[in-house]
Amino acid sequence: MAERIFDAASAADVLARLRGQVPRVHCLTNPVAQAFTANVLLALGAVPSMTVSVEEVASFAASADGLLVNLGMLEPERRAAIPLAIAGAKGAGKPVVLDPVFVQRSPARCAMARDLLAGGVSLLKSNKEEMAALFPEGGGRQILDEQQTVLVTTGAEDEVSLAGRGVRLGNGDPLMARVTATGCALGAVLAACLAVEPDHMVAAAAGVSLFNIAAELAVQECRGPGSLVPALLDALYRLRSEDIHTHLIASASGQETDRRTL
Amino acid sequence: MAERIFDAASAADVLARLRGQVPRVHCLTNPVAQAFTANVLLALGAVPSMTVSVEEVASFAASADGLLVNLGMLEPERRAAIPLAIAGAKGAGKPVVLDPVFVQRSPARCAMARDLLAGGVSLLKSNKEEMAALFPEGGGRQILDEQQTVLVTTGAEDEVSLAGRGVRLGNGDPLMARVTATGCALGAVLAACLAVEPDHMVAAAAGVSLFNIAAELAVQECRGPGSLVPALLDALYRLRSEDIHTHLIASASGQETDRRTL
Amino acid sequence: MAERIFDAASAADVLARLRGQVPRVHCLTNPVAQAFTANVLLALGAVPSMTVSVEEVASFAASADGLLVNLGMLEPERRAAIPLAIAGAKGAGKPVVLDPVFVQRSPARCAMARDLLAGGVSLLKSNKEEMAALFPEGGGRQILDEQQTVLVTTGAEDEVSLAGRGVRLGNGDPLMARVTATGCALGAVLAACLAVEPDHMVAAAAGVSLFNIAAELAVQECRGPGSLVPALLDALYRLRSEDIHTHLIASASGQETDRRTL
Repeated sequence: MAERIFDAASAADVLARLRGQVPRVHCLTNPVAQAFTANVLLALGAVPSMTVSVEEVASFAASADGLLVNLGMLEPERRAAIPLAIAGAKGAGKPVVLDPVFVQRSPARCAMARDLLAGGVSLLKSNKEEMAALFPEGGGRQILDEQQTVLVTTGAEDEVSLAGRGVRLGNGDPLMARVTATGCALGAVLAACLAVEPDHMVAAAAGVSLFNIAAELAVQECRGPGSLVPALLDALYRLRSEDIHTHLIASASGQETDRRTL
Repeated sequence: MAERIFDAASAADVLARLRGQVPRVHCLTNPVAQAFTANVLLALGAVPSMTVSVEEVASFAASADGLLVNLGMLEPERRAAIPLAIAGAKGAGKPVVLDPVFVQRSPARCAMARDLLAGGVSLLKSNKEEMAALFPEGGGRQILDEQQTVLVTTGAEDEVSLAGRGVRLGNGDPLMARVTATGCALGAVLAACLAVEPDHMVAAAAGVSLFNIAAELAVQECRGPGSLVPALLDALYRLRSEDIHTHLIASASGQETDRRTL
Repeated sequence: MAERIFDAASAADVLARLRGQVPRVHCLTNPVAQAFTANVLLALGAVPSMTVSVEEVASFAASADGLLVNLGMLEPERRAAIPLAIAGAKGAGKPVVLDPVFVQRSPARCAMARDLLAGGVSLLKSNKEEMAALFPEGGGRQILDEQQTVLVTTGAEDEVSLAGRGVRLGNGDPLMARVTATGCALGAVLAACLAVEPDHMVAAAAGVSLFNIAAELAVQECRGPGSLVPALLDALYRLRSEDIHTHLIASASGQETDRRTL
């Protein structure tokens, strides 16, 4: 099952295309995450742009190859810029990734995230707490299938799913949680992968795996969360196809498969 | 004298409680300091949140375990958010740390800092220039005693004082001044310590000492201010009770003691 | 030719004065670049300030020794602060460096950059794409000579020119492009150098060379763009006169010289 959807060869292929095509990713992300996110994209072979200005954001998003919308901190100007950027990206046929950071803590962010999902995004990346806030008792989740939105659920194990197909991904390291904005930066990696791989489910699984395999390699080189940051960026820069083949942990998502067979 | 107020055992105890309780610290801090501050808290075992949005900040601050208010750069939205956040934190009985960055250079910040002190904060962290601007020729300092505000005066030697009791702390390294936002990050460490230690003077002395001992250990591992950053975060993450017992430099503050005996 | 304008001894002299005079540089720069820019200045021996608040920025800029105006991201508050800061700096006789980031992508930034050049700045730092947007088919470039604005054109090779005099600089490493905000941080280094060296052409050539020689030394120590960041800051901190004498690549700009002989 999983082999047909996603395997090491498809992840390595996405990595090669990232480096070959050098996609530009426009990131509307929170101030804490901006510099690290930019460096993650550059290390991987993509190019970031970051403006939040309402005058500029639509044209930056339209001319980029992918858009990240991260709701962390959600300053007023970014809130105003988000619909303009999404309209620019979608009008140009570019993928949009939504990261609804901490919606369980902010009714305003949660309402905005639901509006954005109803309008249609390419990918929703969220953890279990954010999912529970967006879809209380699972209600409303059908919007994802209706809009062909790939869902990336992060946790100790990550899961990528769309319309009942699913892949479970087992890479990563708990030390990543001791570095701010690693999850936010992953959102930008996902946007970069969707920019170069039209099968968004493969793109999403590749993005999660590339990032988390680089993290595993980096953890072996570091002495704590401080040295993990440069080591992770170096590992993303140096990541080889062989690393993916050696380290990838992926399997078909039985749960999702079961859900489909209901 | 000092032994009764603060010693290595009490600093080690605060460190153990930080790691056991994982306090959340809401940080209203300047943009330059945000990412580094978040990483310092995560390395030490606390959890940062950072939103400045006026719609969100009161609830974030109220549900956090401590609040940092840093006046560096002081953008309009942060200025508007500060009173809301302080009201949220104080309403929920949570400690508030004030860092009046560069008040000697900005009359607007100085006026705001005085208002915040008059309203009552748990801890004021400032260097000698900032103190001189806040309390010209010492005038108005009685507000600290009236509000039971712990004073942390930073410098080549640091001093923690409250109502005539005082501790002098001798750890740290001059190379820290070559890294931006180390003082700002210390403010967040202090808020984390106050969140887990009800004796705010012990908490403050512990926070200063943990941070500065980690800095000393990091300086031994680094080649300059660039490699000091990851080394400091690693040292905060790896800091052990033995390190504190080996390295702590603390003594009763004679000056403050003398002042009390007047 | 070039020896009279700029050589290793003059670059080493600028470095010595930076460390001796500890100039303060006020930076109006984009949020992604702020923390790294501050750390670059501190590593080199200068002191950054960064406030963007319209209430504060004129007095911060006037009391600083140099001003950097970077148009990246250009949030509304920074846009409002820029003319106030420039007026403050110029009123106090301090140099102003303009970095017109991505003007080719934003008509609003391009219009602002042209206005600032017409008002007179000490130095314009831009790459070829930005130059082409500012001066389509070279039109309008005479404003630089009229205002005695030093032009630093960055690229695989960098060029510093003023009124027909020119120096070509060959240091640097392509890996720098894999780290966000290296170009933005160079703008701040240039402002620091102009603050201590009244011959702005020598100052500019020194700033470019110091930064890029440090980058070359750092690349030898690092494993990728992640470890390049701490290595670069360490190299700026440790940079010695001998390093400059050993590594500097500079020559008279034949093109510019030819233009002068017309």
